[in-house]
Amino acid sequence: MDIEEVIEEALQKIVPKEEEERFVKTLMSEIEEKARETIEELNLNAKPYFVGSLAKNTYLAGDHDLDLFIAFPLDTSLEKLREKGLEAGKVLGKKLGRYELAYAEHPYVRAEYKGVKVDIVPCYDVKSWKDVRTAVDRSILHTKWVIENLKGKNNEVRLFKRFLKGIKAYGSEIYVRGFSGYLAEILVIEFGSFLSVLEKADFMLKKKIIDTGKWMKKESEITMKTIKREAEEDKPLIVIDPVDPRRNVAANLSWERFGLFYFSSMQFLEKPSLEFFFPGEKRGNYREELKRKGTHLVTLLFTPPKLVDDLLLPQVEKTAKGLAKALEIEGFKVFGIDYGRNFIFLEVDRVEKPRIEIKRGPLYFTSHGRRFYEKNEKVWIEGKDLMAEKKVGGFIVEVLEEIFKKGQFSAGKNVKEVIKSSDILIDFVPKPLANEAYLFLSREKFNVKRSTS
Amino acid sequence: MDIEEVIEEALQKIVPKEEEERFVKTLMSEIEEKARETIEELNLNAKPYFVGSLAKNTYLAGDHDLDLFIAFPLDTSLEKLREKGLEAGKVLGKKLGRYELAYAEHPYVRAEYKGVKVDIVPCYDVKSWKDVRTAVDRSILHTKWVIENLKGKNNEVRLFKRFLKGIKAYGSEIYVRGFSGYLAEILVIEFGSFLSVLEKADFMLKKKIIDTGKWMKKESEITMKTIKREAEEDKPLIVIDPVDPRRNVAANLSWERFGLFYFSSMQFLEKPSLEFFFPGEKRGNYREELKRKGTHLVTLLFTPPKLVDDLLLPQVEKTAKGLAKALEIEGFKVFGIDYGRNFIFLEVDRVEKPRIEIKRGPLYFTSHGRRFYEKNEKVWIEGKDLMAEKKVGGFIVEVLEEIFKKGQFSAGKNVKEVIKSSDILIDFVPKPLANEAYLFLSREKFNVKRSTS
Repeated sequence: MDIEEVIEEALQKIVPKEEEERFVKTLMSEIEEKARETIEELNLNAKPYFVGSLAKNTYLAGDHDLDLFIAFPLDTSLEKLREKGLEAGKVLGKKLGRYELAYAEHPYVRAEYKGVKVDIVPCYDVKSWKDVRTAVDRSILHTKWVIENLKGKNNEVRLFKRFLKGIKAYGSEIYVRGFSGYLAEILVIEFGSFLSVLEKADFMLKKKIIDTGKWMKKESEITMKTIKREAEEDKPLIVIDPVDPRRNVAANLSWERFGLFYFSSMQFLEKPSLEFFFPGEKRGNYREELKRKGTHLVTLLFTPPKLVDDLLLPQVEKTAKGLAKALEIEGFKVFGIDYGRNFIFLEVDRVEKPRIEIKRGPLYFTSHGRRFYEKNEKVWIEGKDLMAEKKVGGFIVEVLEEIFKKGQFSAGKNVKEVIKSSDILIDFVPKPLANEAYLFLSREKFNVKRSTS
Repeated sequence: MDIEEVIEEALQKIVPKEEEERFVKTLMSEIEEKARETIEELNLNAKPYFVGSLAKNTYLAGDHDLDLFIAFPLDTSLEKLREKGLEAGKVLGKKLGRYELAYAEHPYVRAEYKGVKVDIVPCYDVKSWKDVRTAVDRSILHTKWVIENLKGKNNEVRLFKRFLKGIKAYGSEIYVRGFSGYLAEILVIEFGSFLSVLEKADFMLKKKIIDTGKWMKKESEITMKTIKREAEEDKPLIVIDPVDPRRNVAANLSWERFGLFYFSSMQFLEKPSLEFFFPGEKRGNYREELKRKGTHLVTLLFTPPKLVDDLLLPQVEKTAKGLAKALEIEGFKVFGIDYGRNFIFLEVDRVEKPRIEIKRGPLYFTSHGRRFYEKNEKVWIEGKDLMAEKKVGGFIVEVLEEIFKKGQFSAGKNVKEVIKSSDILIDFVPKPLANEAYLFLSREKFNVKRSTS
């Protein structure tokens, strides 16, 4: 298939059909109607806004999560915004059907209507970046900016988003650190089309700074500050937010996820295929992978503290790195780490090491030598040095338990204690982690060489 | 037992009884008589000399090896000395009974008479160190010097020699590198008694230079040169040969063997016991030692080239060290090495390592990165770096065979080829090496902490 055919076929699958469009439009107007009713009933000075991909008409066929923001005037106190916002959410939630409470910067209502998940989030009705007070306030501005600038390239965005999903580079959540939908939209607007974005993968990395909103001209000082800050943190891209010069839209994009995009773009342009958009799920047997590599998998299972991903996962990562370092000090080679909310994977070269270590001591004819001779049980000479044996734990589980006991590892502060009572599994993981273990051990997660190419 | 009692008991065992003394005297005069006969018959201008511990009366009871030197005038050519010396040896050998040929710097005759081994060695009849032409010429001077200077301290020498044997520090052979008999005699003459020598173990190491022959006064330039040379080679002791200022009598003494003497002296003076003179043989099970330590023993068995120990063993040592280094590069930890004429021991942390190695490659967005990506089969990203897997031999025997095949190890030049067709044994040695393996793995060889103390 040539590239046009591939794109055509992908579009068939991701562009909503007329019927779906009608369903979405009806859905949105019904919800908006009920939201206005609610605001009136509660006598609130607030406006409903749809934000996100449905509002921007960049959603993928079948992908209907809806974000409804209840925007309050800027002179509302934060306390009142929270209280009234939540109240409105509950009332509207009841009108829509069932709902539950969810938590981000403030609590909000997650409702369901006609099988579609609807998040009802209170925010300030900001007109400019200067008004932004809470983390979600910018969303209204983002939606507005995209609608104004997309100029009919909605399907180009759909292609790019589906491509990013296919190559596992989509989503700015902390456990992904890939491209957000908004970042995808900006790149399509900046470079003009799905294919142009792919062609510019190397170019944009080298250019580094993307300033679609032309902030360098309008607010050069603030923009420079943003660039300096993000450059110091060595981000792969600095995409100045078209609605806020203080923000890098790609702040959470990791080098690894950009790398997946980098190589996949190259590969797709060389040898296009629908596989990039709709890959088969990568599945495999982690035990076979262990056998092939001759390595071993240590899995720590623990009960995580009740923290959101954004707070918890960096702590788990720090802990995993700390344990890897501690094991390296104990003489195990750690080939790689991975983690999730309640587990840490450590791939090691072996699970058993000698039960003794050999210490090189001082020169034998010195007073230090004399003390070493007296302190140690088994002492011999190599050259001029005294040598001694030190008994150590040989099995990696003992070694880890010793590390836990002594607390000699760096860890996230809310994780350090719970990790100490982890279950330690060797070369075995519970069923739900089996494919995760395979993806880790096979390095498929950030693999850039496809078997299809 | 106090120290006098211990010494008294040791003397009982090592000083020859009257009967034995008579036997030795008769033996020597009979052999001397036959030697004179032989010289006369062959019409040689040569003199017979006894050298060694029987001649000096410092031999241990029951230890009767005899060295008879046939000394030729200095104007004899080396060729003639060899020819006539060997001829005299053969004739005398026949008179004494059976004999065989042995080889050192020149061939010589090894005969047997009344159950005593008699080496018949040709040499020059030197009167001074300036005349010395072959390696054995000094022996006559040594014997003469000791007889003149020992002043009745023969039994002190016997005690010291037996002590050195007991603590495994006796013998200047290359595979021991301990104290020679002559060195033991000089130390007793220098310090006055067996116990004084022991008390001076630390002192002599710190003083470093022992100049019993007072060469610094008589030949300061040559003596300084000797000291400088030996100091540069970092010898534990520099004992200027009382008969030759160019030579360090302790040149072959290793730091390890001196260390055995150093600690044993200390221990004996603190807690004297007959054990030091007559230790039970150290025996043990090497397999239990492996189990206790959790380490593994790799044994290479090979057919050595026909070279004398002095030439072969340093080459085997170099080879063992070279292989240890090569294995370390391959990711095995080598805890220790040992060797003999036809074997090398390597104690390692494991016999199996992962079948893959992980290579960190270049930055992924560079041309180097592109080449790395194309060259390698499995490629993934960590941070900004490309990573790849490399298949490697996992079992230590495969790894060694690969090292042999590539020749990537330093080795003695006459050993490098034969080592490549070694039998490689893992955690098993043939019976004759079993105790050697135990002594190595338990580090009893240079152990300085005794279970008795």
